[in-house]
Amino acid sequence: MSNNALVFNAGSSSVKFGLFDIEQAEPKMKCKGVLDEQERAPRVVVTDTSGKALLEKSRPAGETNGDSLLAEIFAWIDGYLGSGKIAAVGHRIVHGGREFSGPTVLNEQVLASLDALTPLAPLHQPRCLAAVRAVQSLQPGLTQIACFDTAFHHDLTPPASRFAIPRRFEEQGIRRYGFHGLSFEYVADRLATLAPMQTRTVIAHLGNGASLCALHKGKSVDTTMGFTPLDGLVMGTRCGEIDPGVLLYLLQEQKMSVDEVQHLLYERSGLLGVSGISADMRALLTSHDAAAREAIDLFTFRVAAEVAVMVNTLAGLDGLIFTGGIGQHAAEIRQQICDRLTWLGVRLDAEANARGEQRIAADGSAVDVLVVPTSEEITIARHCRRLLGADS
Amino acid sequence: MSNNALVFNAGSSSVKFGLFDIEQAEPKMKCKGVLDEQERAPRVVVTDTSGKALLEKSRPAGETNGDSLLAEIFAWIDGYLGSGKIAAVGHRIVHGGREFSGPTVLNEQVLASLDALTPLAPLHQPRCLAAVRAVQSLQPGLTQIACFDTAFHHDLTPPASRFAIPRRFEEQGIRRYGFHGLSFEYVADRLATLAPMQTRTVIAHLGNGASLCALHKGKSVDTTMGFTPLDGLVMGTRCGEIDPGVLLYLLQEQKMSVDEVQHLLYERSGLLGVSGISADMRALLTSHDAAAREAIDLFTFRVAAEVAVMVNTLAGLDGLIFTGGIGQHAAEIRQQICDRLTWLGVRLDAEANARGEQRIAADGSAVDVLVVPTSEEITIARHCRRLLGADS
Repeated sequence: MSNNALVFNAGSSSVKFGLFDIEQAEPKMKCKGVLDEQERAPRVVVTDTSGKALLEKSRPAGETNGDSLLAEIFAWIDGYLGSGKIAAVGHRIVHGGREFSGPTVLNEQVLASLDALTPLAPLHQPRCLAAVRAVQSLQPGLTQIACFDTAFHHDLTPPASRFAIPRRFEEQGIRRYGFHGLSFEYVADRLATLAPMQTRTVIAHLGNGASLCALHKGKSVDTTMGFTPLDGLVMGTRCGEIDPGVLLYLLQEQKMSVDEVQHLLYERSGLLGVSGISADMRALLTSHDAAAREAIDLFTFRVAAEVAVMVNTLAGLDGLIFTGGIGQHAAEIRQQICDRLTWLGVRLDAEANARGEQRIAADGSAVDVLVVPTSEEITIARHCRRLLGADS
Repeated sequence: MSNNALVFNAGSSSVKFGLFDIEQAEPKMKCKGVLDEQERAPRVVVTDTSGKALLEKSRPAGETNGDSLLAEIFAWIDGYLGSGKIAAVGHRIVHGGREFSGPTVLNEQVLASLDALTPLAPLHQPRCLAAVRAVQSLQPGLTQIACFDTAFHHDLTPPASRFAIPRRFEEQGIRRYGFHGLSFEYVADRLATLAPMQTRTVIAHLGNGASLCALHKGKSVDTTMGFTPLDGLVMGTRCGEIDPGVLLYLLQEQKMSVDEVQHLLYERSGLLGVSGISADMRALLTSHDAAAREAIDLFTFRVAAEVAVMVNTLAGLDGLIFTGGIGQHAAEIRQQICDRLTWLGVRLDAEANARGEQRIAADGSAVDVLVVPTSEEITIARHCRRLLGADS
């Protein structure tokens, strides 16, 4: 009999999940899947760790019923595990606000608190909570655990956590929280083994969403995302940092509604907006269109600029770590970013980078440069194990 | 008989003006004044270059008539100049948009273009243009010249000039312009003499408004203010950079109107908002309140962070220049900023800094550090002379 955690990571268009054995000290993935309910034909795919399909189901367009696909997943897992059981379902929850500094068992009260944070991450929070509710309705007795993207940054202090607005707004919770914490936590843990001597590290989580974390002796001391996941770097469809006067102008002069501005800045901007081609870095890297190059150029310029901001908070830089879909797989993007940071003493080994090795700094580089694959799911499985008391 | 330029610099609560002899190659100030129409008792003061009062008039509260005080200034100058004349009135105009890349003689068509830029600097542009119109109504035949705060940054190119929003907005003029150009132009000109070997310079114009300019061989290649003068550094009452999600939240959740948000971010934020005490750095520096210290802390943190951004654009740093009211006079602020930049090789000579010397870097500092008093008015007088053809 095995003890397992089912981990959900609800993204913009699909829910990724993974089944982890949490008997041993380090959770071990058994299988993983994607539940895609946004497409015209909703479908679920489960594969083993080698990528072999274990389950594949889809519904014809029009017969959408997400819960029933979810029910099929649970039924399938039941058979797959035999005498083993799911001890808990762990969820990536984007926003934990000021209240939640670490993983928390979900109940109605916690859910209400998290619902109330929706305005702070209007596009992300509802998706996370929808997954919780869907599981709850299918398996009412099952322990569910919330793991927060904000928690890793919970101890950010002023000035890094502060906006230059009147204090009463800060007291109401308008401050910088930061996100991607489950990814940064995973990478910080890996660095304790891979680069134990690094004191001042910048982790670049570059994916469809993107942010940097300034890590001082393993703790987050600054990050580029702020109150919401809209701030900081250029992302797939999000603008990142922008003159607040632009929003006022769009509202006052172009007579856009607040909802239209929100849609514009969250869904139509970033790489997609600048290129006019795609939000996907892979598509831009293979495009011959000048606008694609310009979007990439802005992306890498802004990453380098924000690395400089993080380095200022850290008062120097020992290591630069790339992770996330773009960070792990786009050698050309890593190269462009590092080329912009030679003034910081960053020197890349172009061949090691092109081969995608773990350590990609050139000999003699003043800054260690690593590629470290991340796993938000393993971080969540670890937290499930800990909260279930499996550690004790 | 002398040839003179009368220079107007319309600020938030008063209009500063200066009378310059432009016969010689370098304009020479004869006298200067302040026209204060916002106070309860509007008044005008004119002093000579030693500070001796030449004219002092005020109106009792309630008898406000700005134009008549302006008329008195012109009448007084007429007597003061004797057989000399005012050849032109030069104005600092905050926004020149994409159209105006240099000083321009004002006519109705130009004025209409500048009026149309008001939404890009809603609090500043109308004040500048009001001064133009007041002079026009009093002295209809007098040549007036617009000198733009944006012009020095006119050649900013992508990625530095670009926001990560769809291209059609950039085509409509939503891009980064930058401001304080008349000040940066003056300082850049001084640096050609003071530090001719500097290739990569950051000028910190720190006053009630504040921004940085990244100067490469004397040309602006990046700056912290963007589309409007709201962006970038923490200012007296302006927030500077802020998560755009904060604006969406204030509008959607706190049900603030766009005008209320604009008022909050332009007039109630910055040093004033964070301290709850004052927008004036001098008041904060002498306060014993913890909130005053925290506001200063955020100010210097943000200046240092944005210096890092400018250094990234420049790919290194040879010189850091302080100017503007705070930059020229607040030794403690310069010290705090430089203390945050030791990682860049900045080393301050604490005593030279305290004494307010021109060169304040310690021996062996990797970065030259200077205090260079600025003069937007002299820059404007120079442009008047040039446009009048006095150079030829």
